[in-house]
Amino acid sequence: MKFYDCSTAPSPRRVRIFIAEKGLDIPTVQVDLRKGEHLTEPFRSLNPWCTVPVLELDDGTAISEAVAVCRYLEDARPEPPLMGVDARDRAVVAMWEHRFEIDGFLAVTEAFRNQVRGLAGRALTGPGNVEQIPELVTRGRGRVERFFTVLDEQLAHHPFVAGERYTIADITAQVAVDFAGWIKMSLPPGHRHAVDWYRRVSKRPSAAA
Amino acid sequence: MKFYDCSTAPSPRRVRIFIAEKGLDIPTVQVDLRKGEHLTEPFRSLNPWCTVPVLELDDGTAISEAVAVCRYLEDARPEPPLMGVDARDRAVVAMWEHRFEIDGFLAVTEAFRNQVRGLAGRALTGPGNVEQIPELVTRGRGRVERFFTVLDEQLAHHPFVAGERYTIADITAQVAVDFAGWIKMSLPPGHRHAVDWYRRVSKRPSAAA
Repeated sequence: MKFYDCSTAPSPRRVRIFIAEKGLDIPTVQVDLRKGEHLTEPFRSLNPWCTVPVLELDDGTAISEAVAVCRYLEDARPEPPLMGVDARDRAVVAMWEHRFEIDGFLAVTEAFRNQVRGLAGRALTGPGNVEQIPELVTRGRGRVERFFTVLDEQLAHHPFVAGERYTIADITAQVAVDFAGWIKMSLPPGHRHAVDWYRRVSKRPSAAA
Repeated sequence: MKFYDCSTAPSPRRVRIFIAEKGLDIPTVQVDLRKGEHLTEPFRSLNPWCTVPVLELDDGTAISEAVAVCRYLEDARPEPPLMGVDARDRAVVAMWEHRFEIDGFLAVTEAFRNQVRGLAGRALTGPGNVEQIPELVTRGRGRVERFFTVLDEQLAHHPFVAGERYTIADITAQVAVDFAGWIKMSLPPGHRHAVDWYRRVSKRPSAAA
């Protein structure tokens, strides 16, 4: 296996934390997003969507999309389980992971990519250029506020996002919270359940990934 | 189990097709989205995100998000497998499903919800109101065009979206193509691989779901 990463980017960090929690050691290639390495060959042939993370399997298959890479790693190294332990749990984890990817991670992405000058014409990831839409900065920030609130409400009743155990749903939420720092947003101190959870997950050794 | 559906809506149709392919028979409750039933009690307590599909398990757990509902059903009824047959295949299926949800299904959603008068103030699903952004109609349509192209390129090399077998990735793409009809977009005839695939998947009995 070979892991295509960009050590400064939030999206592959979801997989870096997953790998750290699994205790895996996978040869890693850094893709320089600032230099546009993801938009040119040979990376573009590996992943036509021009995104990291990518996991290249030994047979040459390239898996992109963070959740799909994690799905592979969960099968390859089942312990500790990060995607659920039985049918009900797997569905609950998938629900929260998916919801917080959209409401958290992609909401921050929306605000960030439509705002930053250096990403003019690059409002969406992918091989094609997409112009920024300034209204999406405001919309994205509003969505992040709601994400913080829902996160706090859920953690008022459970120690972790999807229940009793640390899972991929925590990873997605945690990376989204850290990514929100890029648009100068952070968990409001009044969201004490989320703040407490964030302290706990940030103390895990995997958070350094 | 109880399935919360809206028979006219594309999002729960992803699960309806999945259920049909599995040969399952699940008691179904229709939620009237036009009357706003999803935004009021008791549905809102069942799913605070106010979306269908939802699968309510016998212990009362409510699973929302189409992919999470399908995850549960795949465990409950493994045959025929619709989410992959081994570690590599599961990852490939998850990758295509996720990519076509974002690039296909959510791209159509973006164009549709930002355009239609009846959805003014409802540009995003969820309990809160979000204003339409007209530029997203154009952007969404451009994204759908690219989805059609990528779909065609992938089907030039494989009989189904994720390879040799019909999977959840086909369902997501198929529902996205049908949903695109709502914004008067259809597969260009020149995309003959995608057009041929679309004919094949539309002939399956599950397509009527």
